[in-house]
Amino acid sequence: MTTTTSWPNSPADPPSGDELSRIHAWWRAANYLSVGQIYLKDNPLLRKPLQREHVKPRLLGHWGTTPGLTFLYAHANRAIRQRGLNAMYITGPGHGGPGLVAATYLEGTYSEVYPAVSQDEEGLNRLFTQFSFPGGIPSHVAPETPGSIHEGGELGYSLSHAYGAMFDRPDQIAFAVMGDGEAETGPLATSWHSNKFTNPQQDGVVLPILHLNGYKIANPTVLARLGDEELEALLRGYGHTPLFFTGGFEDEDPMAAHERFAAVLDEALDQIAEIKQRAQEDAAHGRETERPAWPMIVFRTPKGWTGPKTIDGQVTEGSWRSHQVPLASARDTEEHLADLDAWLRSYRPEELFDEDGRLLEEIASTAPASAQRMSANPATNGGSVLIPLRLPDIRDHAVEVDRPGASVSEATKVLGGWLRDVVRDNPDNFRIFGPDETASNRLQSVYEATDKQWNADFEPHDRDEHLARSGRVMEVLSEHQCQGWLEGYLLTGRHGLFSSYEAFIHIVDSMVNQHAKWLKVTNELEWRRPLASLNYLLSSHVWRQDHNGFSHQDPGFIDHMVNKKAEIVRVYLPPDANTLLSTYDHCLRSRQYVNVVVAGKQPNPNWLSLDEAAVHCARGLGIWEWAGTEVDGEEPDVVLACAGDIPTIETLAAAKILREEIPSLKVRVVNVVDLMRLQEDTEHPHGLSPQDFDGIFGEDLPVIFAYHGYPWLIHRLAYRHDRHSRIHVRGYKEEGTTTTPFDMLMLNDSDRYHLVMDVIDRVEGLATRYAGLRQQMVDARLRARAHAYEHGEDPAHIAQWQWDDTADHAAGGAPAQAQDTGGDN
Amino acid sequence: MTTTTSWPNSPADPPSGDELSRIHAWWRAANYLSVGQIYLKDNPLLRKPLQREHVKPRLLGHWGTTPGLTFLYAHANRAIRQRGLNAMYITGPGHGGPGLVAATYLEGTYSEVYPAVSQDEEGLNRLFTQFSFPGGIPSHVAPETPGSIHEGGELGYSLSHAYGAMFDRPDQIAFAVMGDGEAETGPLATSWHSNKFTNPQQDGVVLPILHLNGYKIANPTVLARLGDEELEALLRGYGHTPLFFTGGFEDEDPMAAHERFAAVLDEALDQIAEIKQRAQEDAAHGRETERPAWPMIVFRTPKGWTGPKTIDGQVTEGSWRSHQVPLASARDTEEHLADLDAWLRSYRPEELFDEDGRLLEEIASTAPASAQRMSANPATNGGSVLIPLRLPDIRDHAVEVDRPGASVSEATKVLGGWLRDVVRDNPDNFRIFGPDETASNRLQSVYEATDKQWNADFEPHDRDEHLARSGRVMEVLSEHQCQGWLEGYLLTGRHGLFSSYEAFIHIVDSMVNQHAKWLKVTNELEWRRPLASLNYLLSSHVWRQDHNGFSHQDPGFIDHMVNKKAEIVRVYLPPDANTLLSTYDHCLRSRQYVNVVVAGKQPNPNWLSLDEAAVHCARGLGIWEWAGTEVDGEEPDVVLACAGDIPTIETLAAAKILREEIPSLKVRVVNVVDLMRLQEDTEHPHGLSPQDFDGIFGEDLPVIFAYHGYPWLIHRLAYRHDRHSRIHVRGYKEEGTTTTPFDMLMLNDSDRYHLVMDVIDRVEGLATRYAGLRQQMVDARLRARAHAYEHGEDPAHIAQWQWDDTADHAAGGAPAQAQDTGGDN
Repeated sequence: MTTTTSWPNSPADPPSGDELSRIHAWWRAANYLSVGQIYLKDNPLLRKPLQREHVKPRLLGHWGTTPGLTFLYAHANRAIRQRGLNAMYITGPGHGGPGLVAATYLEGTYSEVYPAVSQDEEGLNRLFTQFSFPGGIPSHVAPETPGSIHEGGELGYSLSHAYGAMFDRPDQIAFAVMGDGEAETGPLATSWHSNKFTNPQQDGVVLPILHLNGYKIANPTVLARLGDEELEALLRGYGHTPLFFTGGFEDEDPMAAHERFAAVLDEALDQIAEIKQRAQEDAAHGRETERPAWPMIVFRTPKGWTGPKTIDGQVTEGSWRSHQVPLASARDTEEHLADLDAWLRSYRPEELFDEDGRLLEEIASTAPASAQRMSANPATNGGSVLIPLRLPDIRDHAVEVDRPGASVSEATKVLGGWLRDVVRDNPDNFRIFGPDETASNRLQSVYEATDKQWNADFEPHDRDEHLARSGRVMEVLSEHQCQGWLEGYLLTGRHGLFSSYEAFIHIVDSMVNQHAKWLKVTNELEWRRPLASLNYLLSSHVWRQDHNGFSHQDPGFIDHMVNKKAEIVRVYLPPDANTLLSTYDHCLRSRQYVNVVVAGKQPNPNWLSLDEAAVHCARGLGIWEWAGTEVDGEEPDVVLACAGDIPTIETLAAAKILREEIPSLKVRVVNVVDLMRLQEDTEHPHGLSPQDFDGIFGEDLPVIFAYHGYPWLIHRLAYRHDRHSRIHVRGYKEEGTTTTPFDMLMLNDSDRYHLVMDVIDRVEGLATRYAGLRQQMVDARLRARAHAYEHGEDPAHIAQWQWDDTADHAAGGAPAQAQDTGGDN
Repeated sequence: MTTTTSWPNSPADPPSGDELSRIHAWWRAANYLSVGQIYLKDNPLLRKPLQREHVKPRLLGHWGTTPGLTFLYAHANRAIRQRGLNAMYITGPGHGGPGLVAATYLEGTYSEVYPAVSQDEEGLNRLFTQFSFPGGIPSHVAPETPGSIHEGGELGYSLSHAYGAMFDRPDQIAFAVMGDGEAETGPLATSWHSNKFTNPQQDGVVLPILHLNGYKIANPTVLARLGDEELEALLRGYGHTPLFFTGGFEDEDPMAAHERFAAVLDEALDQIAEIKQRAQEDAAHGRETERPAWPMIVFRTPKGWTGPKTIDGQVTEGSWRSHQVPLASARDTEEHLADLDAWLRSYRPEELFDEDGRLLEEIASTAPASAQRMSANPATNGGSVLIPLRLPDIRDHAVEVDRPGASVSEATKVLGGWLRDVVRDNPDNFRIFGPDETASNRLQSVYEATDKQWNADFEPHDRDEHLARSGRVMEVLSEHQCQGWLEGYLLTGRHGLFSSYEAFIHIVDSMVNQHAKWLKVTNELEWRRPLASLNYLLSSHVWRQDHNGFSHQDPGFIDHMVNKKAEIVRVYLPPDANTLLSTYDHCLRSRQYVNVVVAGKQPNPNWLSLDEAAVHCARGLGIWEWAGTEVDGEEPDVVLACAGDIPTIETLAAAKILREEIPSLKVRVVNVVDLMRLQEDTEHPHGLSPQDFDGIFGEDLPVIFAYHGYPWLIHRLAYRHDRHSRIHVRGYKEEGTTTTPFDMLMLNDSDRYHLVMDVIDRVEGLATRYAGLRQQMVDARLRARAHAYEHGEDPAHIAQWQWDDTADHAAGGAPAQAQDTGGDN
C-alpha cells in the first residue's frame, strides 16, 4: 500500500494584487477564446472590424457554464504553482468544452498534442474554426481534450470519476467541478458519499466544487433554490465542510471576486493540507485516520458570467438564456453582430496576446509548467502511466479434471482464489468493485488477502466482517458508483473488475455506453495510450433466480453491449471453472475493451482441464468430441451447440439422452466461450471465416443452439453464416415465475428434454421413428414440473445430474441443488 | 385542479396501554406469519411438536427487513383508524415480501383476492407453503401482493413511486418505507428532492420512513454509520423535519418501543395535519402554499428484530446475518430445528389465533376495515380507479397536406399543440414528465395551458419562465425521477408521458424492465385492472446530434424494449407531424403497454394528410404509391422501405433520384410506422401473416430498408419473413463525430446516395448498366462531405431538399437546416 509521503505545506501569503491582475487577464483570455470558439471562424484577434462573414454559419455550443469553469481553472492554476500540487481537473458540466479547450490551449498543451493548432494567429483561427465544426472537435469536453478523463454528454458521473481517479494516488488532488444541473441526477446525488470510502493516507484528495450557476436549459436548478441554510445542511450531511463563495452579481468588480475566491480556495487547500498532514503522521505511527469532514466549495456565480447582460431586452447573464448560444443571430442581424463585437472586445484581447497572437508571457506564467499543468497531468492519459498487473499463474488455481464432468466446482469461487492472489501481488494497482455482492458472488477468498474499504463508523468485528479503512474491495449499493469509480480508476491507468448480478447491470447501460464511446474515440487518438479493459463479472444470472420470482431475470446486457463497436466489445460465457480462470486471465491482460463475462456461482460440473480450457478459450469455441457421437470422416447428423454454463449442462444432458436412445445418430457438440466468434470475420476481429465456421458447424447441418440469453442474439451474430436459417436457438424468452431452476429452463423451452425434442423435430427422418422418444420427453417434462410443484425442488436425477455416472461427486463439491438463496440486494 | 378539502384533524389522545397491547399482538402475528412463510410447509399453528418434515426443503426469503416493516404497518394501521386517513404503504425493501403478505392476510384482503388462502388453519398452511415455492408467490413484494404498487427486486425507486402516486391525490398519504441499503442508490438519493415538486394544496402527502436497520447482505449501510448529527443535517438538507426513533436494542421491552413509536408517528402526523390545514386555508383564500419542511421518520431498529439473537455463536439479530434466512439448517440439524421452534413460539401463536386458525377479533380490529385497509386502497389497483382521458380531436391540430412533401413542420411542435389541449381537458389526470427538455423537444405550446410545477424558491418571471407551484409539467434533471414519478402516477390510475432525448433514455433501462415485468404479471392477474400505458416520446434523436460529437447518439432503447414480451411493447416511428398526432392519440388511449415513440423535433416534410395518416397508422405500414414507380399489375423491381423520419426523407430522396435517373426501374416505397408489424403474426400481436408481408414487400424482391436505429433489429423482427436474406438494412452503425446531419448519414451509409448505390448493387442487371450513375453517387457523397467540411453545413440542395419542387416551402415552416442546437443537458 502506497501512502502519502509529502503533501505540500500551506503557504502563508495570499496572492498579491499584481498576481490577481494576471489571473484576471488569464481568465479574460480563456473566456475570449471560449467565445471565439463558439462564434468565430475568422479574424480571431479582432484586428479587423468584426464582419458577418467572420461568424460561423451554424452556432453550436454552450456558453453558460464556461466562464465559471475558466475562473476555477485559473485559480486552481495559481494554487498548483504556489503549493506545488499534483492536480487534475474534472469537468462535470462537460458541455463547457470551449472553456477547457481554451485553458489547455493557453497552457500550451493543446498545441503540443495538436501542433497545427499553434500558438499564433493562424493557430487561434484553427482553434476557433474547428470547434463544433465538421471534421473538428465536439462541443463537449471529450477524449480529444488533453487533461480530461471525463466526457461531457450524459451527466452525473463527475464525482464518481474523480474519486475513482484518486484511489491509490495519495499525492494527488482532483478539482471536481459539478454542475448544479448534474447535481440533480441520481448518480451524482449518491456519489457525494464517496468520501466514506476514501482513505486519507492512501488515497488522493477530491475537492468537490458545486458550480451553482442557477439554471439548466430552461429551468432553475434545485440546489440553487433551497436557501443557503438548507443547502449547507445538505452538504454537511454529505460529510463536508462547505465553503461558500458568491461572486459576479450586481456588477461586482471582478478583482474583488478574484481576491475573495482566492481566499476561499486557500482556506479549502489549507484544510486539506492539515488533513493530509494528520494522515501522514497517523501513517508514520501506524494509526488509522478517521474520516475527516473534507472541505468543498459552493461556487455561486451568474450563468454566462461576463456575457451579454440582456439580449433583445431579455435578461441573459444570470439566466437559463445563457445556457447555449446567447447571440444566436450574430450572423443575421447587425444588432447582434455589434453585441458580439462588444462582448468579445470586453475581454480586451489586445492586452492579452502579442503581435503573433501568442498569450503574453506574464499572463501565461500564472499557469504551471510541464507536467504540473492539469492538461498535461500524466494520470489523465491513464495508458501512459499504466503498469501491467503481475498475474499469478492460473495453473496454481486450476481445478483437477481427469474426465469431463467427473467433479463439481463453483466457478466464481475458484476464480475468487486466483483473484485473492491478484490482489496480493498488486497492492496498489487493482481493485474489485461491486454492489454488496462480492461474497454473494462467491469471490470471498479475496478477503484472505484484503478487506472492504470503508471509512465511516465501525461496529465490532462480530458484526462488521472484512471491513477496514483500507482494502481492495469497494462495495456500495449503487451500481452507478461502482461503475463510476472503476471508470475513474481505469482512466487513470489502473486495473479492476466489476462484479454484479446479471439482472441489475442494466442500471449502468448508459454509463458503459459512454465509456465504450470513449474507448472508440481514443483508439483513433495516437497520443491517448491504451487503458486496461473494463471487466464485468456477471453472476447470479438469469437461470438461477428462481426464488426471486419474475423480477431478477434479464440477460440483455449482452445485447446492449453488442450494439457497441465490434473492436471494443468482448463477451465470454465460460462453461466451467477452468474456462472462467483462463478467460479472466485473458481479460486482465487485455486493453481498451469492455469484457463482459457471465458465469454462475452455483456448483457446476467441470468439463475441461486447465490445458484444455486454455486451448478452448484461445479458440473461443470448439467441438467437444468426447461429448458427441461423431464418426471419423463422416459428417454428423446434427450439431448441438451451447454457450453459457447452464445451457452447456442441458446440451450435454440432451447429448447423453440421444447417445442412449438414438445410438445411430451422429451428434456433434460445440461449445462457445467467446460469443463474438459467431460473427463473420468481416464483422468482428474475433469472427470466423465462412470456411472455419462451416468446419465447426458443418455446411448445412441443423444446429440446435442452447444459449444463455435472448435467442435472437445468436441469430444476429451468426447471421452471415446462417444459410437457410438452419440454426435453431433456445434461450431466455422472458418467461419466469417463482419456481425451480429446471422449471425455469422448461418455461423457456431450454431444458434438455426440449433440446432432444428439437433434434427429433429438426433432423430429417427422426420425427416418425422416434415419436415415442419425443413423447417420453414430453412426459419427462411434465413429471419434472409435477415433482417441483409438489416437493419444492427439482428431482434429484435432474438437480444432481451427472455426465459421468462413475464419478465421485462427493469429492468435487456440493450437489447442484445446494441450499442457496441466490443472493439479493 | 382538485385541492384538499378535508384533511382529518389530529386526535388528542395517545394510544392506551390496552391498545398498544393489541398492536403488539398484531405485530407478533405478522412476524409469526412471516417466519412461517419462510420456513414452514406444515403445522402452521405449531399445534404439533415441530418436526423436520414441517420445514421446507429449500429455505428462501428475506427475514432481516421484515419485522421492521410489520411494526410500521401495525402502527400505520392505528393511525389510519384513529385519524381516518386514506393511506397506502410503499415497501422500499421489497424483499420483505413475507411481512407484507402477512399484513394483507391479517387484514383479510389476501383471502378476499385469493379465496383459497382462507382465514383458517388450512389457509394458513397454504399461505406458508406457497411462499417462494414453485407455483406459489415470489419472495418479494410483487404485483401479486394486494395493496402494492412497488415491486421488490431492483432497489431505489420507492420514494419516486410514492410521490408519483400522490400527485393529484390531495386527500391521501403514502407511508413510504425506504431501506437504508436502497438509500445508497443514486435514484433514491436524488428522489428526496421530490418535495420541491409537490404542492401541499393539490397533491397528497408522502411520509418518508428511513428504515435504518444498519446492514445490507454483507455490509453496513452508509446512512447508519454517519452519526446522528450528520444524518440529521442530511435529512434537513433534503428539506425534511426528521423525527428519530431508535427501538428494540438492548432487550428493550417491546411495549416501551410501541409507546415511544406511537408518539413519534403521532408527532409526524400532527405536523402533516397542520401543514395540510394551512394549505386548505391558503387554497380557500387563493393563496399559494410555500414548501413546508415535511416531517420524516428515521426508524432505527435491529435487523432481524425479534429473530434469533445468535446462531452458532455468531451475532445474528442486529447484523447482516439476519438478511436472508438466518436458520439455514433448520431442516438439517436438531439444534437449528429447536432454535426455529423457539423462535416461532416466542410470538405465542396460541394467544393470537382462535381454534380455527383465525386471528382473534380483538387483535384484528386494530387494523382498519374495507377500503381503509392499505392493502385494499383502490388507488393501489390503479386500473380500478382509472378515468379515461378526454382526448381532443386531432383533426383540430392536423397539418394541412395537399400534396406529399409540399410543406414542412416540426412534428413534436404540432404534437405540443394537441398536448396543450389534452392538458387543458384533463386538469387532474394527466402529466408530462421530462428532464428539462419539454421545450427543447418543442412541446412548448403546453405552456399556454399550464406551467412547470415547482415548489422551491422563485426568481422574477424575467428569469423563471412557466414556473409555478402548480402545473402539469414535471421537469427535473433526473431521468430516474421522471420515470419513477410517472410509474407511480400510472400505477395509481392516471395518465402521462415521458419526453426525453433518445440517447439518455437508456438511463432508465432497468427501471422500465421492472415496469414491463409488472405489466406482464398483472396481465395474468384478473383482479388487477389495466393501467394506462407508459408512453415515451424520444426526440433529439440519433440523426440530429451532429454538433455534440460522438456522445449523444444511441438508438438502442428500442432494441432494449424489444427484448421484453411482445404483448407489452409497442414501438412507433412516425415519419411526419400527422402520423405523430395519430400515433399519440392511439398511445394515450391504450392500456398496459410500454409505447416507445421516436420523432424528430426539426422541420421535416409533411407526407400525409391526417386522413391518410390515420389509415397509415392503423395499418402500421403501407405502400406509398405516390412515391414509387410501380406499374399496375406488375411486380416492382425493388422495394425501398423506411422507418423513422430521417430515413424516410433519405428513402424518398433516393426514390426521386431513381425515378429521374432510371425511369424504367419499378420502385415500390414502403413506410413503416409500427415496427412490430415487421414480425410474423405468431411472434407479436401486431405481426403480419406471411401473405400480408409478401403483399407489401413482394415475394422475393430485393428490399433496401433504411431504418432509424441499429440495423440488426430489422433483421431480427423480419427474420421469419426474410427468405434468402433479401432484406438489406441501413441504419446507425455506431459511427459519429462532430459533423453535419447529412454527413452523419453518410458515415453510417444511410444517406440517399448510398441507398441508390445499394439499389444498383442489389437489383439484377443494374450494376453494369448504371456504373456511371453509381459513380455519380460516390462523387455526390464526396462533394457533400467536402462542402460540409468547408462551410460547416450541408449543401442547400441537401439540407433543404424538396420532394415536391413546386411547393411553396416558405409557407410551411423553416428550412430543414434551421439554426438549432439540438438541445443538450
